[in-house]
Amino acid sequence: MIEVAPASALPASELQPTFDHYRALVEPTLARATRGREPRRHLYDLIDGHMVRSGKAFRPSLCIATAEAFGCLAERTIPTAAALEMLHNAFLVHDDIEDGSETRRNRATLYREHGIPLAVNAGDGMQAMTLRILKANLEILGPDLSWRLMEEFDHLLLESIEGQAMELGWIHDNNCELDESDYLQMVLKKTCWYSFIHPCRMGALIARGTSLDVRRFDRFGYLLGAAFQIQDDGLNLTGAREKYGKEIGGDIAEGKRTLMLIHLMRRVTVAERGQIREILGKDRQRRTPDEIDWILALMRQHGSVDFARAAGRDLARAAGREFDTAFGDAPDGRAKAFLRAVVAHTIAREA
Amino acid sequence: MIEVAPASALPASELQPTFDHYRALVEPTLARATRGREPRRHLYDLIDGHMVRSGKAFRPSLCIATAEAFGCLAERTIPTAAALEMLHNAFLVHDDIEDGSETRRNRATLYREHGIPLAVNAGDGMQAMTLRILKANLEILGPDLSWRLMEEFDHLLLESIEGQAMELGWIHDNNCELDESDYLQMVLKKTCWYSFIHPCRMGALIARGTSLDVRRFDRFGYLLGAAFQIQDDGLNLTGAREKYGKEIGGDIAEGKRTLMLIHLMRRVTVAERGQIREILGKDRQRRTPDEIDWILALMRQHGSVDFARAAGRDLARAAGREFDTAFGDAPDGRAKAFLRAVVAHTIAREA
Repeated sequence: MIEVAPASALPASELQPTFDHYRALVEPTLARATRGREPRRHLYDLIDGHMVRSGKAFRPSLCIATAEAFGCLAERTIPTAAALEMLHNAFLVHDDIEDGSETRRNRATLYREHGIPLAVNAGDGMQAMTLRILKANLEILGPDLSWRLMEEFDHLLLESIEGQAMELGWIHDNNCELDESDYLQMVLKKTCWYSFIHPCRMGALIARGTSLDVRRFDRFGYLLGAAFQIQDDGLNLTGAREKYGKEIGGDIAEGKRTLMLIHLMRRVTVAERGQIREILGKDRQRRTPDEIDWILALMRQHGSVDFARAAGRDLARAAGREFDTAFGDAPDGRAKAFLRAVVAHTIAREA
Repeated sequence: MIEVAPASALPASELQPTFDHYRALVEPTLARATRGREPRRHLYDLIDGHMVRSGKAFRPSLCIATAEAFGCLAERTIPTAAALEMLHNAFLVHDDIEDGSETRRNRATLYREHGIPLAVNAGDGMQAMTLRILKANLEILGPDLSWRLMEEFDHLLLESIEGQAMELGWIHDNNCELDESDYLQMVLKKTCWYSFIHPCRMGALIARGTSLDVRRFDRFGYLLGAAFQIQDDGLNLTGAREKYGKEIGGDIAEGKRTLMLIHLMRRVTVAERGQIREILGKDRQRRTPDEIDWILALMRQHGSVDFARAAGRDLARAAGREFDTAFGDAPDGRAKAFLRAVVAHTIAREA
């Protein structure tokens, strides 16, 4: 993958094939993790069934591309990159239970198909698999770097779980007093660390060793991650169901405190605010499609969707400006061009 | 703790004070793990609230006593022993969700108090805390032994989750075709590895280093663990509620495939068998107290409770005979006398 290329972004048409290429690198490791293990029907079949419907392997791609950009062979990153993908999917299984989500990747969520008990346990199994996959680092990278990567995993695990607790707590309390900075703190913790910052940090650590100051990636990953999350929240409201793979408007049904909702709550009348609060305070099953459509219409009317769209674009642009802090000293090449294209795509992405 | 003492078991009166002593050794580490972290209300308060109601710290005690028996200072074991206690409690939080258990330690279970979403996430947080606590091993024990202990954790995690999948799968499928060996395999995986075998193995590894063949503890821990689990299942049916801390008959309400139930299913008439199967196949909420009492009465009538009691005692005696394989070359002393007393207490325990 490390070829000389112009100091520019990959063309958009090569983005997906490059994701596919990176995904193919981690897939054998993911498949091997569960192969031959028992019990199949109530554990490993659930895990495999979830993993084969996996997405574009964003986190492994970010990790491997970063390592390559800093001159490292992809092979050295495989256990770490595969573990990131396994952990992401473990999070999804538990998140869907916690959020009461009905569909994922155009199928019933795991807990809806198999029940909460088996799904909670399968998610635990996937978290345990993550640790098992990481064990292979010892042989490839030696004990010092392997431990350092374990510390990165430790940090991303707790940050993600704390961020998830923030979001779930807001829903649990029907908290309607949030502002943008609450939202951004939650997204940093829940999404940015594990999906953006740590994949880059880990890739760079594998390439450059434990002496590297990994904080150079923190602002870049935070800004890009927040942009992504806000765009994703927008797609949840306005996207095409087949492409998105989840229920449209599902975030409103789940009571999620998105940037759009936070914006809206400060624009509506006191009476409307009370009505929204009441709808959000209901059990999910008791929220009607009409109520969800009404909130969505208010969001359009008060410019909340446009506001979030603009905020996402601003954050993506800011991430673009941080690119050189993070990757400036990496030689130009295909991997760096891929990373640049990810940022460019995010700036151009329509939420 | 390492004093010269006769080659006998500690007197029963000193068993609980010794557990208390070992628990006091790990408590500061457990308290420190969550101190100062946020968010409190929806994550760390839940974890702390669960941990302060903790039991007798059986697993840490087994780990520390084994290390001491092999001549090691307790201090070297603290992160490992504390991690075992944290992980055990993480399992309990998810198990209670998976089993639909209503009470634990004479209080509502965590998910009943705070809802499934926050409880699933808190259990994930406790699993992540386990990893964080283990990090401290690196400084105390160096990278080789720390990695070896991480491998022990990796093994115990997956075994426990696979065992849990077996048990949940039987309930999910309303499987009524099980025999004793299915039950024992499930208990080995779900209980014995993490609660008995690995605590001993880890303590011995810390004392003797990575060259020790830890398999010497496997039979001892399996037999003692199976004895404990069968006795615990018996207490669930016949114990005093205050002492036991959970609903009496709760295992029947949860559809658990205990040794008593498996024994019973082979003794009853075809008609009764059909009725039991029907009761077990219902949603938990739809099983009536009368139905549970009827099954319990059948168990007494057909000797299923006595059968399990005898099986538990036989297994405990067999564990006693394995004691010397596991601990024979450990010098006599207070720690070894404690371990011997744990076995003696199990043999004498009334289920």
